[in-house]
Amino acid sequence: MPSFSEEQALVADANVAFYRAVESLDFERLQSVWLHSDDVKCIHPGWELMSGWEQVMRSWSLIFENTARIRFELSDVQVVVNGGIGWVECLERIYDGESVVGEAIATNLFQQNPDGRWLMLHHHASPFARRLT
Amino acid sequence: MPSFSEEQALVADANVAFYRAVESLDFERLQSVWLHSDDVKCIHPGWELMSGWEQVMRSWSLIFENTARIRFELSDVQVVVNGGIGWVECLERIYDGESVVGEAIATNLFQQNPDGRWLMLHHHASPFARRLT
Repeated sequence: MPSFSEEQALVADANVAFYRAVESLDFERLQSVWLHSDDVKCIHPGWELMSGWEQVMRSWSLIFENTARIRFELSDVQVVVNGGIGWVECLERIYDGESVVGEAIATNLFQQNPDGRWLMLHHHASPFARRLT
Repeated sequence: MPSFSEEQALVADANVAFYRAVESLDFERLQSVWLHSDDVKCIHPGWELMSGWEQVMRSWSLIFENTARIRFELSDVQVVVNGGIGWVECLERIYDGESVVGEAIATNLFQQNPDGRWLMLHHHASPFARRLT
């Protein structure tokens, strides 16, 4: 793990909380880690842009209804905090139960709430190929 | 075009300036639209994360050396400005001369320089499929 400042560590925790919420397939828990705003946006791997609270949440609801089990292993987590925005890059190794079903690279943005909590503003995950060189 | 605030319009202009710089295949021009910082990151469609000024610029240099012609048509441009960070989503239709060679969805982050210019902090472009439903 890289050495994070206290602020970066809070953003990294919010990032982990997002993935744990997805793993839980608990829709209310997932909602609680997102900023309740029409500024939120989400790009699932290979999907079009989902924009605004309603559309983003509908997409997650659809995913949860069609997912029996999902687990994420995160690596290469990089965190920048800048002007009330926390910006995370990470690699997702995605498991369907026991097997790896895909790898994605994610850009996740978080905004700090007045109560101090960092909430998700944006999730962009896309498939990637490891380069051989 | 959506109706943008003055600040959003400046960020949208910086976004267009980035794509025009890529189209120019002029490496110095491309460098001038990025923030000169080790916080910069870039994900080309299907590539691994490029992190830091040197690695990001090396990736563009490689692309420029291997590209004869490239044009972008942008659509669905959405801009949020928040705490000194400008955050753009857009669809890229990518042309190799006359023909469409691909479509991508991009998350672009910009930071406002002390001199007022918005410079690119992050570019994440990924292939996407239009949903039929």
